Formats: sequence, C-alpha cells, structure tokens
Amino acid sequence: MDTRGILIVVSGFSGAGKGTLMKALLAKYEERYALSISATTRKPRPGEEDGREYFFISTEEFEDKIANDELIEYARYVEHYYGTPRDYVERQLAAGKDVILEIEIQGALKVKEKFPDTLLLFVTPPSAAELERRLVGRGTETRDVIESRLQRAAEEAEGMSRYDYLVVNDNLDACVEQVHAIICGEHRRCARCAAFISDIKRELEEL
Amino acid sequence: MDTRGILIVVSGFSGAGKGTLMKALLAKYEERYALSISATTRKPRPGEEDGREYFFISTEEFEDKIANDELIEYARYVEHYYGTPRDYVERQLAAGKDVILEIEIQGALKVKEKFPDTLLLFVTPPSAAELERRLVGRGTETRDVIESRLQRAAEEAEGMSRYDYLVVNDNLDACVEQVHAIICGEHRRCARCAAFISDIKRELEEL
Repeated sequence: MDTRGILIVVSGFSGAGKGTLMKALLAKYEERYALSISATTRKPRPGEEDGREYFFISTEEFEDKIANDELIEYARYVEHYYGTPRDYVERQLAAGKDVILEIEIQGALKVKEKFPDTLLLFVTPPSAAELERRLVGRGTETRDVIESRLQRAAEEAEGMSRYDYLVVNDNLDACVEQVHAIICGEHRRCARCAAFISDIKRELEEL
Repeated sequence: MDTRGILIVVSGFSGAGKGTLMKALLAKYEERYALSISATTRKPRPGEEDGREYFFISTEEFEDKIANDELIEYARYVEHYYGTPRDYVERQLAAGKDVILEIEIQGALKVKEKFPDTLLLFVTPPSAAELERRLVGRGTETRDVIESRLQRAAEEAEGMSRYDYLVVNDNLDACVEQVHAIICGEHRRCARCAAFISDIKRELEEL
C-alpha cells in the first residue's frame, strides 16, 4: 500500500534477547527487512568486515558526516564514535524495506524526535525475575556485572512508556511473529496511508 | 499482557465487504472477539431473536437508557432508535474480549471522542473502480442506488484519515489475518500496557 519502508528502532534491556530476536526476524523475512549498519571510528577486529559489522571510517570522515548531517544519530563511547549513516537507511526505505536500528534508549528517543515516523519497539523479558535469571544463566558475568546490568535496566525502564510498542520476549518464534505482526499492522495506520487515501478520494470523485 | 479487551469500531464503504469480513473474523477467532449487539425500538422481523440480532426494547426503555448514559452511542433512523448498550460491551471487555462494533462514520468518531482508547478501523476495497464493480456485480441494485452509494462513499472518504487503521479488503482470508494482526499489535502498544510497565519497574527496583 505505502511503498516506503518504516524506520524501526529496537531497544531493550541487556538480557532481553533482542539480538537473537532481530537475527531470527531478519532470517525469516529477509526480503522485507534490512538491518542498519553503523559507522565507527574504531579499528576492525579480526573477522570483522567493512560494510558487514560496521562501516569502518576515520575520525575525520566521521566528523565530516556529523557536520554535514549525514548521520541519523551518533554517540561517542570512550574514544570512538559510533553512528548511523543516513544514506544507507534512506536507500533501503526508498526501496520499500523496513529498516531496523538497534540502539539504546537515549539514541532511540533522539531519532524519534528527529524523524517522528520512526517506530520504537522495546524488547523485554516477561518479568524482572526472568531478566535476572537470564543474566545469571549466561554464566559469563560476575555478580557485580549482573548487578550493574539490573541497575541499568531499572533506569531504562523509566523510558519504556515513551516507546510505541512493548515486545515481550518469552518464546523466540512467537516473538518473531509478534514483531512482524506489529510492523505489518503499522503499515496500515491511516497516518502512513496518505497516498492511498488521497488516491481513492480522487477516484471516487471522478466516478 | 493487558487483560482488558479493546473496543473496536469498524466502518467502511457500503460494498467494502465489512459484514462478511467481521463474520469470518469472529468465526475464526471466536474465543477472542465479541460482536456488540445493538438495542433497537423497532419490532423484530420474522426469524430475528432478542439478544441475537438485536436487543428489542420499548421506546420508553430506550429513552431511559439515553437519560442514564447507558448507551455508548445511539442514533435515530426514521421513527426508530438504534444504539449500543454499554453494559454488554463493558462486561465483554472486562472478560478480556475485544468487542467489535459495526457503525457508520459519524457514530464511530463520537465513540472515539467519548472513549479515546477505541480502535477505529476503516474497511475499503483496493480502489474506487473495484468498489463500483462490487456494487454493480451484486445485480440487486438499480443504477440510481449505486450512484447514491458511490456519492455517499465519496463523502465518507473525507473521514477516512481520522481512523486509526485502513483495512484493504481484497482477499477475504488475507484480510481476516490483516485485521487480526492489527488488533494483536495494538495490544502491544505501550499506552495499553501501563500495568505491565509499572509492574516490571517495581520488580526491577526491588531486585
């Protein structure tokens, strides 16, 4: 109906399983979705490829992009920049793909402010107890790290209600379908169907 | 997640097939949806049953309901009243059912004003030409009636953009799934998940 894709920002608690969820969604509906690729000024790690994990660019190039408003959002962690190049996203949206951006809550809210059509999804486990269980269950983190993740989750939870949709990740397959249904439904929002509405209005008047 | 149902108002052009669509939706997901039953002051026709097609009540009873704000909406056509009793709808919503109300555009907008949580769906054929084809194809209407339906559709189209979602009824089965996906997605709107959000916030703080 509307041929343009939707920009979708996905956030969620660490341990909510959003990485796995997005991978499964893209694997199942690969024609439909594109994952946004970030640009960064950090060096590639062994096995990473330019244009696959990241676009690896110099600090000068990155700062040029900032100056020319060529990034949808960006942030600086420690001494490196990370950001979302606008041209790649725009090309995918124009080609009718829904583009998925995985970023944290502050970035997500900034994107929504700049592009109000953006769809914000927040991924959460069914309960706080389950989140803790998953973090502990990984067995790779110290208790301190787990505590700090839970602390951060409590802070992030303050922003949940500013998202458009809440995705409860309990069962992976069901959750993939849930996200897909949310996005399909969103394409039918009247606010996104302005072209269809004006076409049918004109046709009805011409009959 | 949210245990309360959603009130869904469905409107659409005459000839868009919304009656057939709703029947198919309710047949496929009967546990999930309830169709609101209107009250009317007109006499039952042969084969109609009280509480099935309509609640048949007296003019006095109807006017009492108006006075006591016991109707979600009502209208008077020719010499009879038609309206939606609030108690039946409330009971179904409280039981977790999504309640579907099939009413025309003016009533739909009034319901949304009174109950902002209401979900408004507008059913349309894929094009004006297809709408005309369907009206002509019935073979039961004179050209005058068809003209007046198309005229009315042109007027109704003015209100389309005030609906939440546009449902394009091209293929019945696909359309049933589309409506179901829209409603499932809508249950995940953060605005409808306030209880879940406040629960998980509290749990995270208590961990």
